[in-house]
Amino acid sequence: MGPQTLIYPMPALLIGTHVDDKPNFMTVAYSGVVNAEPPMISISIQHHRYTLKGINQNLTFSVNVPSVDSMVETDYCGIESGSKSNKAEVCRFKIFYGKLNNTPLIEQCPINLECKVVHILDLGSHVLIIGRIEEACISNDCLTEGKPDIEKIRPFIYVRMPNQEYATFGQVIGKAFSIGQQLKIRK
Amino acid sequence: MGPQTLIYPMPALLIGTHVDDKPNFMTVAYSGVVNAEPPMISISIQHHRYTLKGINQNLTFSVNVPSVDSMVETDYCGIESGSKSNKAEVCRFKIFYGKLNNTPLIEQCPINLECKVVHILDLGSHVLIIGRIEEACISNDCLTEGKPDIEKIRPFIYVRMPNQEYATFGQVIGKAFSIGQQLKIRK
Repeated sequence: MGPQTLIYPMPALLIGTHVDDKPNFMTVAYSGVVNAEPPMISISIQHHRYTLKGINQNLTFSVNVPSVDSMVETDYCGIESGSKSNKAEVCRFKIFYGKLNNTPLIEQCPINLECKVVHILDLGSHVLIIGRIEEACISNDCLTEGKPDIEKIRPFIYVRMPNQEYATFGQVIGKAFSIGQQLKIRK
Repeated sequence: MGPQTLIYPMPALLIGTHVDDKPNFMTVAYSGVVNAEPPMISISIQHHRYTLKGINQNLTFSVNVPSVDSMVETDYCGIESGSKSNKAEVCRFKIFYGKLNNTPLIEQCPINLECKVVHILDLGSHVLIIGRIEEACISNDCLTEGKPDIEKIRPFIYVRMPNQEYATFGQVIGKAFSIGQQLKIRK
């Protein structure tokens, strides 16, 4: 069986780049945190993608975490190519810029990360791009006591199996680095 | 701000290896699908981890996706080191083997993937390991009409912010590659 068996909670993310000096956004599902210090994130993109052209041109990209309020726009940015449509305009994204040049960020997304490319690795159908996070921005109204609060950010997951759907995060069921302590007595 | 700002739905996964010929399992949160053809998955592990020793020895590893029924054991495998404890025994994991040698799989986990290491990349605090999925195994009772069914697999997510908790998958809120179609009329 192939990767279709992977039951992965993939965050729906909007990747921002300039392609030929125009802001463009693409939805990716293949992504992950890959390093803590310095903080790095990876995304995987197919070779023919318009966004890959922009990443190669600028060696930067942004990661925008949409809330459920932008679910329709996020799906659209995964369906349509920037070579055919001005997706930022269609989605009415308010674009702003941070520390890096040519790296557009979306105001409607509660979390925005600016990344510099540190590795590009051709894996076959996809190109793995590893970016070092240079700056992170979170909407003030998504903080609780100064910390990001998932209940306010309201991100969503792409669930591939069985029906290619988007889902919210579910109920909390346990405390990490804690509930496993009880097994230590078994040693 | 650092990676603590990342609101990422990280699947809690149990990575299996032989270390000095003994089966061992470690919980990872940093992971992702990185390629479709051939199917590849990445995990990131800190340098000092016992599991990294096993991966270097065998150049294989397994990815076991636990259900909520194994949440306590999964947390334990993230807290304890295999250098100090026989985690498989403490957790009462039933171990089996598939196509690859020295790559232990956990019967209690509904999904098991056997991976061959194709890339190892030192990123700083973590080592990124990319594995090609050689074999995937899913429990029969987690299939619906031959397809993996997330409602039966019942995987769980590690939610780092704000309180380091495990959560279930939530409600379905939209159909992917579909709900965005409505924006095409705006072009």
